Parts: sequence; C-alpha cells; structure tokens
Amino acid sequence: MAGPYRVKFLPSDRVFLAEEGESLLELAMKSGIHVNASCGGNGACGKCRIKVLEGTVRSAPHPKIPQWEYEGGTRLACMTSALEDLVIEIPFESQVDRAALKRKREASHVLSATDLDQLVEGWEVDPAVFKKYVELEPPSAEDNINDLGRLVRELRKKHEIDDVSVDFRVLTKLARVLREADWKVTLTLVATRRGLKLINVEPGNAEDKNYSIVIDIGTTTVCGQLLDLANCNVYRRIEDSNSGAQVCTLGEASDYNAQISYGEDVITRILYAQKPGGLKRIQEVVISTINGLIKELLDMSGVSVDHVSHLVFAGNTTMTHLVLGLEPRYIMLSPYTPTANFIPPVRAINLGLNLRDHVHIYIFPCVASYVGGDIVAGVLGSGVFQRSDITLFMDIGTNGELVVGNKDWLTCASCSAGPAFEGGGIKFGMRAGRGAIEQVRINPTTFEPMILTIGRAKPAGICGSGLIDIVAELLEAGLIGQNGKFNRELPTKRVREGESGFEYVLAYAADTQIGRDIVLTEVDLDNLIRAKAAIYAGCKVLLDSVGLSFADVNTIMIAGGFGHYIEVEKAQMIGLLPDGPSEKFIFVGNGSLLGARLLSFSQELLRETERIARTMTNIELSNSARFMDEFIAAMFLPHTDQKAFPAVIDQLLRAGKEIVADA
Amino acid sequence: MAGPYRVKFLPSDRVFLAEEGESLLELAMKSGIHVNASCGGNGACGKCRIKVLEGTVRSAPHPKIPQWEYEGGTRLACMTSALEDLVIEIPFESQVDRAALKRKREASHVLSATDLDQLVEGWEVDPAVFKKYVELEPPSAEDNINDLGRLVRELRKKHEIDDVSVDFRVLTKLARVLREADWKVTLTLVATRRGLKLINVEPGNAEDKNYSIVIDIGTTTVCGQLLDLANCNVYRRIEDSNSGAQVCTLGEASDYNAQISYGEDVITRILYAQKPGGLKRIQEVVISTINGLIKELLDMSGVSVDHVSHLVFAGNTTMTHLVLGLEPRYIMLSPYTPTANFIPPVRAINLGLNLRDHVHIYIFPCVASYVGGDIVAGVLGSGVFQRSDITLFMDIGTNGELVVGNKDWLTCASCSAGPAFEGGGIKFGMRAGRGAIEQVRINPTTFEPMILTIGRAKPAGICGSGLIDIVAELLEAGLIGQNGKFNRELPTKRVREGESGFEYVLAYAADTQIGRDIVLTEVDLDNLIRAKAAIYAGCKVLLDSVGLSFADVNTIMIAGGFGHYIEVEKAQMIGLLPDGPSEKFIFVGNGSLLGARLLSFSQELLRETERIARTMTNIELSNSARFMDEFIAAMFLPHTDQKAFPAVIDQLLRAGKEIVADA
Repeated sequence: MAGPYRVKFLPSDRVFLAEEGESLLELAMKSGIHVNASCGGNGACGKCRIKVLEGTVRSAPHPKIPQWEYEGGTRLACMTSALEDLVIEIPFESQVDRAALKRKREASHVLSATDLDQLVEGWEVDPAVFKKYVELEPPSAEDNINDLGRLVRELRKKHEIDDVSVDFRVLTKLARVLREADWKVTLTLVATRRGLKLINVEPGNAEDKNYSIVIDIGTTTVCGQLLDLANCNVYRRIEDSNSGAQVCTLGEASDYNAQISYGEDVITRILYAQKPGGLKRIQEVVISTINGLIKELLDMSGVSVDHVSHLVFAGNTTMTHLVLGLEPRYIMLSPYTPTANFIPPVRAINLGLNLRDHVHIYIFPCVASYVGGDIVAGVLGSGVFQRSDITLFMDIGTNGELVVGNKDWLTCASCSAGPAFEGGGIKFGMRAGRGAIEQVRINPTTFEPMILTIGRAKPAGICGSGLIDIVAELLEAGLIGQNGKFNRELPTKRVREGESGFEYVLAYAADTQIGRDIVLTEVDLDNLIRAKAAIYAGCKVLLDSVGLSFADVNTIMIAGGFGHYIEVEKAQMIGLLPDGPSEKFIFVGNGSLLGARLLSFSQELLRETERIARTMTNIELSNSARFMDEFIAAMFLPHTDQKAFPAVIDQLLRAGKEIVADA
Repeated sequence: MAGPYRVKFLPSDRVFLAEEGESLLELAMKSGIHVNASCGGNGACGKCRIKVLEGTVRSAPHPKIPQWEYEGGTRLACMTSALEDLVIEIPFESQVDRAALKRKREASHVLSATDLDQLVEGWEVDPAVFKKYVELEPPSAEDNINDLGRLVRELRKKHEIDDVSVDFRVLTKLARVLREADWKVTLTLVATRRGLKLINVEPGNAEDKNYSIVIDIGTTTVCGQLLDLANCNVYRRIEDSNSGAQVCTLGEASDYNAQISYGEDVITRILYAQKPGGLKRIQEVVISTINGLIKELLDMSGVSVDHVSHLVFAGNTTMTHLVLGLEPRYIMLSPYTPTANFIPPVRAINLGLNLRDHVHIYIFPCVASYVGGDIVAGVLGSGVFQRSDITLFMDIGTNGELVVGNKDWLTCASCSAGPAFEGGGIKFGMRAGRGAIEQVRINPTTFEPMILTIGRAKPAGICGSGLIDIVAELLEAGLIGQNGKFNRELPTKRVREGESGFEYVLAYAADTQIGRDIVLTEVDLDNLIRAKAAIYAGCKVLLDSVGLSFADVNTIMIAGGFGHYIEVEKAQMIGLLPDGPSEKFIFVGNGSLLGARLLSFSQELLRETERIARTMTNIELSNSARFMDEFIAAMFLPHTDQKAFPAVIDQLLRAGKEIVADA
C-alpha cells in the first residue's frame, strides 16, 4: 500500500504519519521533532543525520555518510522518505522533542481548496456573463424584421428576456454570423446594474463554452485562474467537493508583477508614474504580465480565447489605478484620495489585453486609498460579509489591511508594516521563492537550527514566514530577549558580532546558494518588530473604534500568499497575531482570488461585492495618535502588555525564560 | 424707401410686388406673366425684352439691345430690377398672361425657417446631453472620499441626481481636472434609456458651452447644422420666431456625399461594399465628408470642438449601415432585412470622426430597409406624429418614402421612383446645382419657353423641379399629349426629331454652358412618367392599405431638398401629387435635418422618435400586385383615372385641350 506510513521517532517514542514521498526532515519539522539542518533540506549540509532502525526507506548513499554508517542505517533525513512503517532514531546532538514543551494544540485551519470554496454559503452558479443558444426563423417576405429585431423578439418570446441593450460591435458581424450559422447562434449576455446587454453572437450552440479569467493583481505577484462558467452548477460543486482542486477551475498561474522593475512597493511605483510617460509605461508592463498569464491559462487548459467571455480584476487601490492608467498620485498624498472606488466595466482590448473585443473587465471596487479591491474580494471570498459572528480579516503584507465586522457591518483600516514580511529591509530577506528559508526550528540546548527552504533548494535568503519562525524560535530558545536584542552570553558560535551588530547565523556560506553566511541581525529584528507592531496596533485601534477587543472576535481570517505558511503559534509568539486558540484562526490564502472566483460565478455575489464596498467604513490610521501609542506599546516580544498574551508568556515560562514585567 | 415696389405689367394691367433686387424675369415667372427666356436668366439669349414705361430701374446697357431701343426703355427682364414703382410693357411676341387661365390659388405652404421649427408643438428645450456646473469641497483628512464619489455625492445632494453611471474615460482625467480647476468643474451628462451617464468633466463653469451637430446623411447630399443647446429655451425660441433663421442654429453646411464616386444610388453602393475592403472604404469616404462639414460648421461659428457634446445622424437605412460599417447586403436582397433598426449610441471617434472622445452619436432608428432614419426624423420634424388629422408625408427622391397617419398610428411604404427626380435617366438631367433649369414656362401660342436656372447661370441641364415644370407646361401648351408623346403638328421648330426620337428644345447651344442644345426627349418623358407613377401608386396603395383615399387626407407634407422648389400646381398637372387645394400641401424642406434638430434639443422628442420608429408599420410594395396595377394606371398625364384630377382636367379643358376619356 501507498502512504501514509507510521513513523516512530526514538528516543521520544512518538509516532507521526508520513505522506508518500514526504522527507523525514519535513515530517520532523511539522511534528515538532528537532533535527539539525542548515541547508534547507537538500542534502548539502549533511547535518540532519538519522538512523533507520526498522522499515524500508527510499534514500541514496550520500558522500557525507561513510559506507559503514550507511550500512548501519544512517541517512540524511532531508533525502529520505518512508516506503513502509518506520522506527527512526534521532542522534543525541540533534534531538530535542519540542512536543513536550508545547501546549496541546490543534493544527490551525489551513483550508483545502474545496473548503475554501465553501466559506461562502447559499449562492448559486449564475454568472453575470452567460450564454443563450437561440434558433431563429429565417426572414421571409411575410416576416422581414431586421436581424437584431428578430433576435430581440426571440429573446422576449422564448427566453423571457424583455429588455436588452446591445453592444454596437455585435451589429458589425450580426448579419453575417446569423446567415452563416443558418440562424442558429449563441448569444453572450451580461447582466449589468442597468439591465442585460448583448455583447457577442457566435455561430451554433456554444452555450457550454463560457469561460472567465480572474486575476489578482498583487504588488509583487499576479495570479490568475481560468474558470469554466458553463459547466459549473451547485450539484457539480457538491459532487466535486472532495476532489481537492478548486471546482470549475481549469487552470491557475502566477507570475511576478513586471512593475517590480519600477519599484518594489506602491509608493515607488506611484512616483515612477509621475515621470513623463511613466504611467503609460507602468500600465503596459502589468498588462504584459497579465497577457502572459492569460496565454499560460489558455495553453494549459486548451480553451480557445474565443470562448473567454469575462475578465475579473482584483487589486489594491494603487494596482487598480495603475492597471487602468488612472492617475495614482493622490493615493499617496494626504488626504489620500483615489480617483474612483467604483470603476465602470472596461473593454479588455482597450487596455491592450489579448482577448476578444466583446470581453469586459469587472474591476473589484475599492474602499479607500489603502483598502482596495483585493480586500473587498477577500471579504467576499472569505464569507466575512455573511457571518453572524464578529470576524477579523487580516491581509498581511507590506501593508496590513484589516477588516472587522459581520453580515451587518464592516469597518476597515490599513497600516503600513514596511516590507519586512515580504523580505524587504531584512539583510538576507527575499520574496517567497525557491531557496527562501520558510520554516525554522532552533534546538534550545545546542542552539543549532533546523531549516526548510521553499523548493528544498540550498538557502538563498529568508522569506516572511521564515522570519516569523526564526524570531519566535530565537525568543523561545532564549537567544534573544523580549526587546529583540541578542543574549550575548550563550555558548554558541552562531551568535556573533557582525558588521552591523550582533547576529545569528542560520546557514554557513558553504551550505548556501549565495556563498555567504545567511544571518539574522538585530537591525532585522528591529524591522520585524516594527512590522508586527504596526499590524497588531492596527487591529487593536480598528477594534477599539467599534468598541470591541480581541476577545470579542470569534474568528480571525488571515489572507495573503504569506498566510499560507505562517504558523499561528509562532506568529503569536512574536505578537503579530493576538492570543487565542488556533481554531479561531482560518487561513484563506489568496482571498482576493477567492473572491474574484465567486464574483465570476454569481451575480448575487457581484451585488454583494458592491454592497460590501459601499458599506465598509474606513478608519484612517495614518495620522492617528491612538495608533502611534498602540504601535509603541507593541514594540516588544510579544507585547509590552503581557496580559494580552497569556499563552505565550506561559510557554516562555515553561521554556525557562525570565519574563520582563509589563512595560 | 427700399422695396418691395409695385410693378404693373402691360398689356395685362396687373400689378405685382417686386422685392429689392429681384429681377423682373423672376417676378414675371412667379406672377404667371410669360416673357420668353432661354438662357436661364443671365442675359445670354437676349430674349426677355421688356419696355420700362414708368419708373427707375437698375439695369445696364446690353449688346443685344441697340442704343436707340435702350433709350426708349427696352431692357432685358433678367438683368433688370426695380428701384421704385414701375410700369412695364411686355412685347407682343413674348406676352401671355397665364393668370387669366389659372384657377385662383393660394401660394402653397413653403414655410419659413422659424415656421418649420413650430411644426412640432408643446416641447421644451431639454437636451439629452446637458452640462452641470458643480463646486466641490476639496478633500480633507475628515472627508477623503474618492474623487468620483465626491462628484456623485454632490450630484445627489445638490442636484437631485440619484443614479449616474460613468464613462471610464472620465476617470482617466478626473483627478487632474478637479485639482487644476480648484474643484469647480462642469460635467457633461447624457440621459440614456437606462439612466444618466457622466461622459465628460471640464474645468470651470462651461454650462453655457454645449453644442450639438446634427447631420442628415443623404445618398447625394450630406447636410449639417451646429446647434447651441445651452442658450436655447422656449422663451428664446418664441422671441426669435421672426428672425428668419432657425433658432439656436449657429451654422449650416452641406456637401455632396463623397460616396457618389462609388455609385449614384444605394444599390450600386451596396454592391461596391461587397468588394474586398469596399465597406471600409465607402464608410471612410462618407466619414470624410462629415468631418469636412464638422470643420466647416466649427470654423464658421467659432465654436471650439471641445464644446461639441453630441452628434445626431439621420439617414436612410443604407446610409445608416454604410456610415456605421454595418453589412448592407441584405437590405438589397429579398426579403430586405437591415441588420438593425435601433442602433446603440456609437462613440464618434470610433468611426474616425474628428470630435472629442466623449462624444457619442445618436443614430435615428430605421423602420425597414427602405424606410430609414431620415423618414423617422422627417415624421418627427414635421410633427406628423402629433397631429390629430390624417397626414400624408412624402419624401420624393430616387426612392419615394411615404408615411400616412396621425398621433395614434403611422403606416409607411417606399417605392422606387428611379433617378428622374434627381436628374438621372434624363438626357440632360442634372442634380439641383448651378445652371440647372429649375423653373420653366412655355408660351401656349408661340411655344417659346421662359427659363430660370439655379444661380441664374447659363443652362447646363434640367433638375427635378425643372423637369416637372417642363412636362406640365408641355402638356398645358398642347405640345405633348396625355400619353407623354409629342404633338408633331404644331407650328414650332422647338419640337423636332432628334437622335432618340422626338424632343423639345429648351435652350439652343449658344445659350447654354455646354455648347449643345438642351432638349427634353420622349424617352425622358417616359422616365418621368414612370417616376411620378410610382410615387402616386405608392401613395394610393399605402392609403388603401389603411382603408383611406386621398380625400381623407387632411394635409400632405412634402420633404426632400427637392420639395423646396416644386410647384404644387405643376406636380398635380403631371399627376405626381394628388388633386387638392394648395393649402393642403406643406413643404418642409429637409425634414430629416428638421427632426434631427428637434431630437437634439429635447429628450421628450428623443423618446417620441423611438416611439415613432417602433410603431410605424411598413407595407412592402416591391412584390405587391396591387401596386403594379396602380402603377400602370398612373402611367398617363395626369392619370388614366381622370376623375381623380378634376382641377387638372378643368385647366386642360380651359386651355382648349382635348381630353382623352378615362383609360
């Protein structure tokens, strides 16, 4: 049989399940078993030695393991996976069983793709852009009504569609298509706020070829999905609910936003757009990124571009302005006014997109300069707008966008966290790409790290989730104090004085891609603390503004690509996320894309989207004294108000740490 | 004092009023005094000699008048105008006083420009495209709503405009214009069937700079007017009602439709459009004609193109298809189906028009392949749609478009008259341009003609109205019989056998621009009879179809540039127009342009336009046996059914003609 297999780790004598192909290092990491590992899981450092006592593994001889040791069962955990139930021994220099120190926790709610689709309830598949097949009587001397009149009459008589306006472009081909198709044609109709509009006519019955492409335009990454609108109904959705993939999704693709060359954050891009020709240029490059994704999605799915009927964009307010070529300047300047929150549908070809000329783009409405369509989409996709209990929605990135509310009301705010969570301002920070250190454990006795990288490549740097892990682990291991400064008196060479103050060595040069030691510095720590403090303070002030505290919040939904990987416990440890049981936290991944999907499937949810954007109240934090106070108070690990983090304090005490009294 | 002056003609001893500058030949023509004249009124033939017995004239010596005669008071009537009251003697060889033979008639109703504007009653100046000046509060930290939201909020609060959609292009400049104009801007709004739409924003208060251009796209001629929408209200209209010019019209211009190079009639143009690239080409050329008119209108009025907010097109169904680039082929092929009768508004720049990008074109809806938007516009502009009594509306050209009805119902038909009325198929036929013979009288004793040309230039050919005059005069003078054949036994050299049968010489070569005798042949007569028979038969069958006869019709409205010049009496003489007193006939000139004007001024009339087009029932004559019967019956002068034209028969009898018994 295939996995999962039972793997018993000795000496702790605890058993975990290993998936088919999962490396034993990965299993150890997720199970809280410490195994030293510096190279991110690719066999380079040779540190993650284990001994297979029972069972068969898939593994290969490795130069760092002498033949006699190999024959005795020694392997590198990162290069070994189970082929049956195993018993594994962790060598003494590596082992530490964190499970003993841990509070008993459930895994936090990282939802499966299909579970994500179920966050919003009670809607039907009823896309705003849909197709209708019609068969017309050919004209005769007795009935020579004009072609369009004939169509409209048929829609009224047979399809109970009473009032339809017409895109002029339909008329330029109508006569030809009707006759070539022997008066049997498929109409593409779009339900607009002001009634139905006919946007395309194509020969024959093409009712089942109706696709949309939804795009989340992130400042860093642009993600797209190709959706099958025609063959997706509620029954289908339910049947497919165990398939793992998001239903009715024929493809998913993502790419860096090519605007990155013009600046990493929205402000530098807005500044670039102020240059002569800058706005046009920066618009063109993101359009080229989107065109690339469209091509990729069509290629992978075999769908013809002729059958793509709809495009949905969700992005933050700046991205929305830039992709549309709208002046972004006043987003950046006080008092921070976007040109528009609600954007009328835009014809895709007018932006230079490689789609047919009838395709229009629905653009998610924004709420304010720093609460954009991506957040509205997130609130839609996560179902916050229909929940009875109080939910806090957090999108954590360079900007922390925060929404609190329920089905009756929604209030939002945003705060600038700085680029730390996206690898910016961190000496060895990088975006969450191949080779980024994404998970770290530190042995509290030896202070040696266990590292996993994205793609299990040699480490190249540290991404946001890795950063949170490292800081939490440094704190828990006593390597840093609650003020974010290194404890310089511990018996480890990994803490040392570097060129910019004290630092912790995560990986030595030889084990890295970059040929330099990868370290975390006190400056990095300071930046991270500022970032997490801003987010936490933002949440606090937002909740305050509606008379609530964290305790009143039933659910915390965390969005952002980032949100896929961070661990609640670690994020609480550093005071990024508030205290609370892990069941309270739901990671929704790319909430923006999730909302864009739903909108594409459902007119009702499209209307909900507009209601969400219209009713959401924005609290401006940028000049708030209250926010500054909270920010200062949060510049501590986890927080100066220790009572706010009882579980973290408890854990630090269990780990034998001395706790600083409330600041 | 300036004119008019009293002019007494001897020997008939009748007095008429001469306008300042009017030639005595023109006065004689309109007064029914015959004076021989072959050259169209430019002094070339020297035949229109008169003698001034009393009073002072403006005239010059002329080589054809010897000094001694000049001194005795002899002048050329065409070169002479009154400077005070006159007594004039007509020489014997010239004179005939037709007034004695005439039934007593009122002048038929050729309306003044302002009277034309009053044909439609009870409407207000309330253009569909209008401007609103708004002053916004600048954004502040307390009120940093997005720019568009600020605008919309102001419209709601101060201007009671609740729901407005937005043209995306407004957004691309909104932020800049608002700030540059210190938040004081003028909005251009358009009332669409589905609510208000914001299409432009401009700095400062430009409420009073709101212009539209209306274009009548004729197969031969394209006419345009530039209208002042902002400074035109009902009070202004009434005050201006004696000014002579159409009120609120800043300019009028016309030009040949450049499509003429691709064929004179709609069928040849449709055929041209079938060639590769033909449709695009033929669209481009009419667009270039319209661009020329737009430039001319703006130049003559000093209006900036920035302030043109609206464009209105009215044309026949083929012209409508061609200017929009719609496939015209099926208009021509049985069962004659246009692509669409109702066309959504089209952005002007998308057709290549040199206007600002916010300007949309309202296109008059068509009714059928041969009853187009020009006719709908005519029905609107002439007020037929709101009259209680039964009105017959005729647009006479290559196609006769006919509408009968009142405020409650409208039925229409069209019939192909052939090009005779526009000078086609007539040996010396020409369009109504300079040198075209437009008015003719023939002396029933000497059979000599009196001719006036357009522009009083030497004759170059015969236009439609001249043709009607000639045939009526030939008939009344007994030069032709009721069958349209020449009486070959009369003592005149002007009837002679030419290369294509018998003919009447209107002007000898020496008196013409073309150096050839200008004649009317029996073939020409046949073509004219076919043309007038088609129109008459069309009216008859149309009336029949709704159970009416000509006697039931209270008013006959005649449209078409053509309609300005023809005389009711002459048209009745040949059986083109039905019998009836001249008060029954109203000439509305370019009815299409008239309707386009009104639509531009009034939303209510825009809605009426759609109602007209929607309710008008089209009767197809092309395959009607009934129509063929009536057509054959009308192939006689005035008609085989003499009882239908009692006044004409009476006049012919008075002129001593032998009347053929009913065929």
